Amino acid sequence: MRVLALAVLVIAVPLLAPARADEGMWTFDNFPSAKVKAAYGFGPDKAWLDRVQKASVRLDNGCSASVVSKDGLVLTNHHCISDCAQALSTARDDLLANGFVTAARKDERICPGLEASILQSISDVTDRVRAGTADATAQTLAQRRGAVIAAIEDEACGKDTTKRCEVVSLYRGGQFKLYRYDRYQDVRLAFAPELQAAFFGGDPDNFNFPRYAYDMALVRLYRDGQPAKGLKPLKLDPTGAEPGELVFTSGHPGSTQRLLTVSQLEYDRDRRLPWIIENLAQLRGTLLATAGIGEEEDRQVREALFGVENSIKAIMGQRLALVEPDFFALKVAEEKQLRDALATRADLRAKYGDPFAEMAAVASARRGQFIQMQMLESNPGSGSSLLGDARRLLRASVERGKSPADRLPEYSDARLASLERSMLAESPTHPVLERLQIEYWLLKSREYLGADHPAVKALFGNQSARDIARQVVEGTNLDELAARKRLWENPAEVAGSNDPAIVLVKRIDDAARAARKTWEQTVTGPTTIAAEKIARLRFDVLGDSVYPDATFTLRLSYGAVKGWTDPSLGEVAPFTYARGLAQRATGAYPFNLAPRWSENQGKLRPDLQFNLVSTNDIIGGNSGSPLLDKEGRIVGLVFDGNIHSLGGAYGFDAALNRTVSVASPLIIEGLRTIYGAKALADELTAG
Amino acid sequence: MRVLALAVLVIAVPLLAPARADEGMWTFDNFPSAKVKAAYGFGPDKAWLDRVQKASVRLDNGCSASVVSKDGLVLTNHHCISDCAQALSTARDDLLANGFVTAARKDERICPGLEASILQSISDVTDRVRAGTADATAQTLAQRRGAVIAAIEDEACGKDTTKRCEVVSLYRGGQFKLYRYDRYQDVRLAFAPELQAAFFGGDPDNFNFPRYAYDMALVRLYRDGQPAKGLKPLKLDPTGAEPGELVFTSGHPGSTQRLLTVSQLEYDRDRRLPWIIENLAQLRGTLLATAGIGEEEDRQVREALFGVENSIKAIMGQRLALVEPDFFALKVAEEKQLRDALATRADLRAKYGDPFAEMAAVASARRGQFIQMQMLESNPGSGSSLLGDARRLLRASVERGKSPADRLPEYSDARLASLERSMLAESPTHPVLERLQIEYWLLKSREYLGADHPAVKALFGNQSARDIARQVVEGTNLDELAARKRLWENPAEVAGSNDPAIVLVKRIDDAARAARKTWEQTVTGPTTIAAEKIARLRFDVLGDSVYPDATFTLRLSYGAVKGWTDPSLGEVAPFTYARGLAQRATGAYPFNLAPRWSENQGKLRPDLQFNLVSTNDIIGGNSGSPLLDKEGRIVGLVFDGNIHSLGGAYGFDAALNRTVSVASPLIIEGLRTIYGAKALADELTAG
Repeated sequence: MRVLALAVLVIAVPLLAPARADEGMWTFDNFPSAKVKAAYGFGPDKAWLDRVQKASVRLDNGCSASVVSKDGLVLTNHHCISDCAQALSTARDDLLANGFVTAARKDERICPGLEASILQSISDVTDRVRAGTADATAQTLAQRRGAVIAAIEDEACGKDTTKRCEVVSLYRGGQFKLYRYDRYQDVRLAFAPELQAAFFGGDPDNFNFPRYAYDMALVRLYRDGQPAKGLKPLKLDPTGAEPGELVFTSGHPGSTQRLLTVSQLEYDRDRRLPWIIENLAQLRGTLLATAGIGEEEDRQVREALFGVENSIKAIMGQRLALVEPDFFALKVAEEKQLRDALATRADLRAKYGDPFAEMAAVASARRGQFIQMQMLESNPGSGSSLLGDARRLLRASVERGKSPADRLPEYSDARLASLERSMLAESPTHPVLERLQIEYWLLKSREYLGADHPAVKALFGNQSARDIARQVVEGTNLDELAARKRLWENPAEVAGSNDPAIVLVKRIDDAARAARKTWEQTVTGPTTIAAEKIARLRFDVLGDSVYPDATFTLRLSYGAVKGWTDPSLGEVAPFTYARGLAQRATGAYPFNLAPRWSENQGKLRPDLQFNLVSTNDIIGGNSGSPLLDKEGRIVGLVFDGNIHSLGGAYGFDAALNRTVSVASPLIIEGLRTIYGAKALADELTAG
Repeated sequence: MRVLALAVLVIAVPLLAPARADEGMWTFDNFPSAKVKAAYGFGPDKAWLDRVQKASVRLDNGCSASVVSKDGLVLTNHHCISDCAQALSTARDDLLANGFVTAARKDERICPGLEASILQSISDVTDRVRAGTADATAQTLAQRRGAVIAAIEDEACGKDTTKRCEVVSLYRGGQFKLYRYDRYQDVRLAFAPELQAAFFGGDPDNFNFPRYAYDMALVRLYRDGQPAKGLKPLKLDPTGAEPGELVFTSGHPGSTQRLLTVSQLEYDRDRRLPWIIENLAQLRGTLLATAGIGEEEDRQVREALFGVENSIKAIMGQRLALVEPDFFALKVAEEKQLRDALATRADLRAKYGDPFAEMAAVASARRGQFIQMQMLESNPGSGSSLLGDARRLLRASVERGKSPADRLPEYSDARLASLERSMLAESPTHPVLERLQIEYWLLKSREYLGADHPAVKALFGNQSARDIARQVVEGTNLDELAARKRLWENPAEVAGSNDPAIVLVKRIDDAARAARKTWEQTVTGPTTIAAEKIARLRFDVLGDSVYPDATFTLRLSYGAVKGWTDPSLGEVAPFTYARGLAQRATGAYPFNLAPRWSENQGKLRPDLQFNLVSTNDIIGGNSGSPLLDKEGRIVGLVFDGNIHSLGGAYGFDAALNRTVSVASPLIIEGLRTIYGAKALADELTAG
């Protein structure tokens, strides 16, 4: 599993009944310690929870991590910092290919735009959010709620850039909570292995097991130019876990859809997921062929390629879960439990009406508006950082002139600081990738919306997609920090800019805003209203013995180190060991060893734990989470889920679903024996 | 709609009731003339049918056509001969880019491997086929039936290469008929416009309307080195059709799935179509990016690219039809009609048991075997002609040594002649495309089957997909006719050949044969048995007032020239005219004009009919069909269906589904005015 909020995990469980053993991504303020204790003989107490919470790090690019030394050293996955390594690379100095091994702390390098957050407190703001939008309609709700939330966040954090405040909707609107974080805007890369060591086996082995991946990296949090002080690290256990042992993951699962209604699931199954798959599959082919042109092309696009391959595999797994008749029947049955409660209890009907019918009624608007929203508003340029920056500069120049209540929420005062920082970070662009992404976006927009759509005509004029993409990438100055800074600081100049990236996004900005407004009024608004009624109905029927869907906020899962019986592979053991690596290394990509490993892997103990699986319930965003024993010691580093885990966005199957981690003994031995990184290894083991 | 047996068309109709107005792909021996007469005041008589049948041509690459002069001139689509134009092109002389305009008949060029067939007679062999496999089991049925059919075909045609005999299964096993054709193995390209004129608007306009495509071409049938004699041409109407006019299409629709059971439809909807879409979308991206590298790469891959783009659009349309709840409910209701008949009539139960349950029971085998069958057996090399030839040489060398009854059916005596001809045709290979296809196939096989699958291990050894593909394409001699001829004529040499293409397919031939055998025994056999029972049940309940699913055999459809009311476009008029072309031509690909058109299009009458739509029920394979008026004169040339027609593989919707044709006046005026091809235009209008 790699970076962003992409789904991992599986199938099957009565979500409405209290969760089964080992299931759940629990918030730290509602962790079922008693239940865990009953099953495993140990349940974490408040001190344990507090300690782990304050050593758990969110990397705001979509990953998790943990503090592992008193000098702010943080352990995460290689694939969580690979965008940083990519950004710091040049054609001559390729950190992905060669790894990054520092001789001393002074050589650590700032990851452009990367921020880290550590959760300090959670407080309930449900009443205030509800009160602030009590009289909102479906048409006004999205805008009004955005304004209320921005006000709460602004009030709590102000302009203090060392804090981050976020109002989180849990249980799909059942609760609203204010999460306050300590925030670190100076995150430096301290160690990275070669991509080939981190991602040994490549796409074929991704989401599979047995595995032999050294998917780890170290960054360091800095404050005022010095390593951050005052953090309480988790200790790394040099001996690792044992089969059957109770283990926890503390991390930030990105997004799950386990509480969706049947009509929403049908939409995902029949429309949304197939659309994403077709779109990503073509993009994947485009990236693969471009990477094949030459070494420099490969260097420029491979990060994007890995992201796309990871996403498409995850989403294909989600779709397959939803077309499984037994699984879908279970979802129908779960919903029926709530529908039956409504049918038999007049008090519930009086409170909520029929929110399931309300939700189903949104389907046709969702279907009619989806593609337009996607192509024009959600991701202009299919990930192009040039068009993304152009869009942000253009919108910020307009939104900053408005009163806070009227702004698009992503331009609220509380969020402008991060935005400014990412806009003004020194980060290289990759012209090969940029051209590819812009051309791709233009072609797919024309394909999906039709050549006669007004926005498509505005984008294309009398030109081809290829020419437009070339002109933007060759003609823009937005790849230069100075140009971005000038426009950021002089918003009045943006509207008249003749920078081709800004000109291109400006051509459709009205259409994009209109698409978003329609979406918010006809889809987001009514969906939110119906979902909140269902969430409250669920609390009325089941209490809070359920866990909320993942929201890229801190969660704790529990489970055991355990293999599984696979329908096609048979018995799968929970650990791999160093001795297995040589057998799997054919020498041909992606089963080739990085040079340092070819040279040194023979020096590892043959029985050194390599990777392991456990029954923890995780999903994309958990990448980089520490795997902890009951003492709160790190026995592994989560980096993937097995193939059965891919449907986990929609439900969890304890029999087949497994979390995949790098074993703690390998983390240390790899640093010492393969990389000679003695200082870091010592720092890590000292804690 | 382009070439192969790819689906076009739409949604909705009680298939089990007699077909509604304008629906149906009718065989010439069961055409509902009385019904057409009742609706339109004219119904074709036997003489009309015979005349049209014997001027209707099947191009055996998956297209339709018609005889248009007494000297064997044949009218079809450009996209039906674009593979020929591609094969005849070199880097210096690019017939796709420049078109092919002959000064004289002697300049006409043989299309390598292309054959044409004209249907002469149909006879019923149902009893013989059934009797020959009466005691077959699900395990033996596929092989046994293949042998019986090969025997009938061999007996009817012998080794006469001027005839083609094919036993066709109609109504999914409800009838078996022997189709006898006159066969032409020397088909020469006489005229082709530029690809950009034929496919103006490219992929964005494909399956759309209004259109401005000159998607026509002329080939000539030769016999013994001379233009074929004795054919009775259809006449081209220089004035064209009128709105509302009754029109027919006579052609060879490739394949429809309108008679599938609900369990089969579910499989297509949830498994098969999504798999194809993901696979083709990635291939599309790979081809697009490769075409973007340079002109020569573009030349080598674009034919394959257009084929993939056409297929994926068609298949996405099919999937969307199947996820439409109303449409699927109709299918369920249709099946219920037969199920109810079974439930209420003991005689039917006694004859057939419960064939729907039998069909549903095949699903899990189909699901378990599908990918293996696809990747190892169905299409080794994802279309690579080198691996295809290697596979055929290898298998032929084995199969030709067996008795006819034991052979794989595609190596029966009746089929060996065509196979030999295509193997020994002089046809260039495109190394860029071949490498791409082979690498793609290897990567997707590993992805789908897993790196640890024995066949995948056998394919890869210790190499990367890229290296294997490069070695095959650089090392093989199969691109040379002499090498293929030598191995074809000396089958004993094949097994020991060290040609890398043969070595590669040999590595998995046992696994591929085993996958096929399992598939035939657990999927094809039981499916055939259940389908035949359902077909007979359908005849018992409904008689033969229904038409059979398309099977790439000659069919007649009827309808009217008519626009439609589109959900998003509003009213769409039935014709486009020459005056509209200039407005749509932006100058940027794919809306640029070919040079001859830039120069001469102003000379066309502004009100010259360009393209038109009609309500005929067609599907992929109908490309190149003549659109005929009630006199049997050609008023158009079918080349596409509109976007609503894409679900037509599964059902037909008369309100929205439209056939798209080149208007006959443009066919002639284009030849005269744009291309100065006076001799051909005169030949065409003389008939």
